[in-house]
Amino acid sequence: MALIHKISGNFLEDFEIGRVFRHKGGKTVTEGLFNVFTDFSMTTNPLSKNVEYARLHGYDGLLCPSGLVMNVVFSQTVTDVSENARANLEYIDMRYGAPLYIGDTVESETTVVGVTLSSKHNDRGVAHVATVGRKQDGSVVMAFERKVQVWKADPGSNIEAGKLDTVPRPDCEPWIPPYDAGRDYASKAYLTDDDTYFEDFSAGDTYEHSRGRLVTDEHIALTGQLDNTSQVHCNQTLIDHNPGKYIGGRLIVFGGIPFNLCLGISCPDVASNSPTDIVYPTGRHTGPVFAGDTVFASTEIRELREYPGREDLGVLATTLRGHKFRQPGQGEDGPQRTPVFELERELAVRRRRHYAS
Amino acid sequence: MALIHKISGNFLEDFEIGRVFRHKGGKTVTEGLFNVFTDFSMTTNPLSKNVEYARLHGYDGLLCPSGLVMNVVFSQTVTDVSENARANLEYIDMRYGAPLYIGDTVESETTVVGVTLSSKHNDRGVAHVATVGRKQDGSVVMAFERKVQVWKADPGSNIEAGKLDTVPRPDCEPWIPPYDAGRDYASKAYLTDDDTYFEDFSAGDTYEHSRGRLVTDEHIALTGQLDNTSQVHCNQTLIDHNPGKYIGGRLIVFGGIPFNLCLGISCPDVASNSPTDIVYPTGRHTGPVFAGDTVFASTEIRELREYPGREDLGVLATTLRGHKFRQPGQGEDGPQRTPVFELERELAVRRRRHYAS
Amino acid sequence: MALIHKISGNFLEDFEIGRVFRHKGGKTVTEGLFNVFTDFSMTTNPLSKNVEYARLHGYDGLLCPSGLVMNVVFSQTVTDVSENARANLEYIDMRYGAPLYIGDTVESETTVVGVTLSSKHNDRGVAHVATVGRKQDGSVVMAFERKVQVWKADPGSNIEAGKLDTVPRPDCEPWIPPYDAGRDYASKAYLTDDDTYFEDFSAGDTYEHSRGRLVTDEHIALTGQLDNTSQVHCNQTLIDHNPGKYIGGRLIVFGGIPFNLCLGISCPDVASNSPTDIVYPTGRHTGPVFAGDTVFASTEIRELREYPGREDLGVLATTLRGHKFRQPGQGEDGPQRTPVFELERELAVRRRRHYAS
Repeated sequence: MALIHKISGNFLEDFEIGRVFRHKGGKTVTEGLFNVFTDFSMTTNPLSKNVEYARLHGYDGLLCPSGLVMNVVFSQTVTDVSENARANLEYIDMRYGAPLYIGDTVESETTVVGVTLSSKHNDRGVAHVATVGRKQDGSVVMAFERKVQVWKADPGSNIEAGKLDTVPRPDCEPWIPPYDAGRDYASKAYLTDDDTYFEDFSAGDTYEHSRGRLVTDEHIALTGQLDNTSQVHCNQTLIDHNPGKYIGGRLIVFGGIPFNLCLGISCPDVASNSPTDIVYPTGRHTGPVFAGDTVFASTEIRELREYPGREDLGVLATTLRGHKFRQPGQGEDGPQRTPVFELERELAVRRRRHYAS
Repeated sequence: MALIHKISGNFLEDFEIGRVFRHKGGKTVTEGLFNVFTDFSMTTNPLSKNVEYARLHGYDGLLCPSGLVMNVVFSQTVTDVSENARANLEYIDMRYGAPLYIGDTVESETTVVGVTLSSKHNDRGVAHVATVGRKQDGSVVMAFERKVQVWKADPGSNIEAGKLDTVPRPDCEPWIPPYDAGRDYASKAYLTDDDTYFEDFSAGDTYEHSRGRLVTDEHIALTGQLDNTSQVHCNQTLIDHNPGKYIGGRLIVFGGIPFNLCLGISCPDVASNSPTDIVYPTGRHTGPVFAGDTVFASTEIRELREYPGREDLGVLATTLRGHKFRQPGQGEDGPQRTPVFELERELAVRRRRHYAS
Repeated sequence: MALIHKISGNFLEDFEIGRVFRHKGGKTVTEGLFNVFTDFSMTTNPLSKNVEYARLHGYDGLLCPSGLVMNVVFSQTVTDVSENARANLEYIDMRYGAPLYIGDTVESETTVVGVTLSSKHNDRGVAHVATVGRKQDGSVVMAFERKVQVWKADPGSNIEAGKLDTVPRPDCEPWIPPYDAGRDYASKAYLTDDDTYFEDFSAGDTYEHSRGRLVTDEHIALTGQLDNTSQVHCNQTLIDHNPGKYIGGRLIVFGGIPFNLCLGISCPDVASNSPTDIVYPTGRHTGPVFAGDTVFASTEIRELREYPGREDLGVLATTLRGHKFRQPGQGEDGPQRTPVFELERELAVRRRRHYAS
């Protein structure tokens, strides 16, 4: 006869260097999840809207947008890695691989790469982890590292800092269907924004994306549909009992939501003719998002590069930034732009002369 | 090095008479979209609920309800036609054609039929447009005209009013599976409301539909799932910075939402035994709907007609009206019925002697 | 020329002993419904998340979680049985049968078993009914009885109380795929919580499940997606015009929602290795849930039993309880635990030595 209160998730003590977490559950992508997330993101890329277009371009079906792939893999890590985290500090070397389709099943695992102790606070430290997500055929859909600030179970426990000699870096190259000169890609070019081919971009330009999207308390259901179990997104009672402990004293929106939304908002300006995102060398949440915030984004074009081995494509190296505005009455100076997200983002973009003429 | 702020959508200057907009994106109907919209509408028609029933009645699968067909086609026109519109004035000659199933992909295009200038305000005018939505096999699922009040980009620009000599009117006849005397339709008749056969209706009767449905801020996600990009439905910051410019100073619910909801609320009384809506000769939004409003509907039966060439069916010519009530405290006289929607609606209805005896 | 206001649902006068209601509509389970409800429940059972895992365990595809099966069958009865009910009093002998998959279609019927009149109030009474839900092949997916307090249409009408001599009890045994010693179940055991095999439980233990979930006004859409037409969940105007008549003077959350949520919240502690729930001998809602409440749950293990004919499984007889906390400021004593749900629950659980070693 016992009262059992199992603790979900791990604490800093559990992050032994080299330990591998094989995450629970796994996730089959249903048409329900696809619909909710693809459209929530406001993406306008027809690869994720129009199956006829996707097939013309060499895909087997509707393609999960990059933001959904990221959200599925990342969320699988939450119970083991960040259910007891204080903050998600940094995304590192986040790479896309095999295409993810409706019906595919993703499983993920995470290796503890390193642990750093806080010099100021003895109740926490930083875990550096590397995650890989694979689908049922073993192919890698995404690999990334991240750094996360994790609570200790016992502030007095003795933990040794350290780092693996070699950070595991699984093969993960974006799969883009081969260019087929016999296909009439141009016949469906009207479905995309015609000023978003590689030839249209110039390094140094910044796009202020015109659309914004209010995030409502729908974020709770969205986060649940990703199997993200972190309580700071959905347990109002937890917050109410100790509001001072939580940022803003409110349920905070899961970072994957503004991440996804910023990618989508940028789409009509930079990604309408992109077959896939390639890599996010680094990224972080620069401010919290709460229900009631309207999220906006901008993209700075940093560099244009050749796509190795592909004359039909180029690479855009960009910085994607998300922001919101202080709501009326929230500040002395009225509405004021407040950053919430920053992501180094490299994406593949089609060249007009191969696809639209 | 430039700061680029692309303008989404067109202004009155862009509506050259005869111009054709081939709308971007296209839309494949997923089971996710189907689920959300079919049930959001509160429809009780088993053609959209029960695939066994749909097959017995000669369909290939679950049938998209009329309100979903309309929402998919209409929403595709928003970026080009009404992203910079002040108001959607009128639906005209809205006709249904080929059945829309899960997995089908819809693309739409719109022709500018006419332009009228405002005599009072030199910053706006009315565009008259004709839209057709087709699925992947080229068949027309819906065709309609509408009139929309559009802002000019520059109040001083000189625009010529005019109209096409002939408004394009593509073939668009509702497809209803042929009657098959060998099928035991009656075996599943218990799935519908048994007082909704053609024999049950009388011209002049009005049905006050008994159910109402609160619209919450879910409307933002619903509108996004339709790829409707209009900012007045989802950009709270836009409203907050200039509330006087927007009706009610609030995010307004996309008209397709109450349109869809009124169709569904009417279903148990008039459309439970309807294979399809046929045509909406005219319709308009007679008042705004906001999150927090509960939507109700009524149907006036105006006329009963034979269905040409089909002894098993009849045509109901009706007027569908939507309304809400002022919320307590909003008016001196307490709750008061306020119209929000009016639609001339003709629908096909089965005859009892062919289907239920 | 008439004004017609059809009354939805039945009153106590309509519950003739022995009468059978064949419920309208029916419901095909789409991937959209599956996604929304599976994840809303916060279940962590991979049979409903990961189709590869489900197939390894002998299922044809992703398995609808028990809470979704219950919600689909129960909701089909609402229009006929409880649209005019004052309260749902008790669930009785709620049994699971054939597995429910995406694409299956459920139809349900309900027999009136008995009627009891209120000794205090002549405007109401209690209907005792028995419901069975079948899928397209005729197999029973769920059977249950319930007692519901129903309004009379006319307080003066003369109704005879009574009860059927024999309550119909259709065959309904849970289908669990046969154990196959040749399958490498252990290869996927990492996907479940490894302390939830039958060997891990002791009678008398109580699990305080660690997660809670805020229920927002999303409950309106969820309830609509189940085709539950009861107006007390979605018609704000109805409530506003006569708040004193309704519990809490607010839209009340459909009982199937906290039912589903409590099952899911308990999953990581008791049902992660459960192939199915077997039976709920009795259950009831012990308090209302409103939008804004965070729902929690606990499970008391009452008894461990052999599973007849299956060495690889055991039966857990448990009591599942749901609760919420008074919100700050709602009571003198601060947060206080308030019960909302209680369910006797028997579930099948795998034995570790057959599945994980």
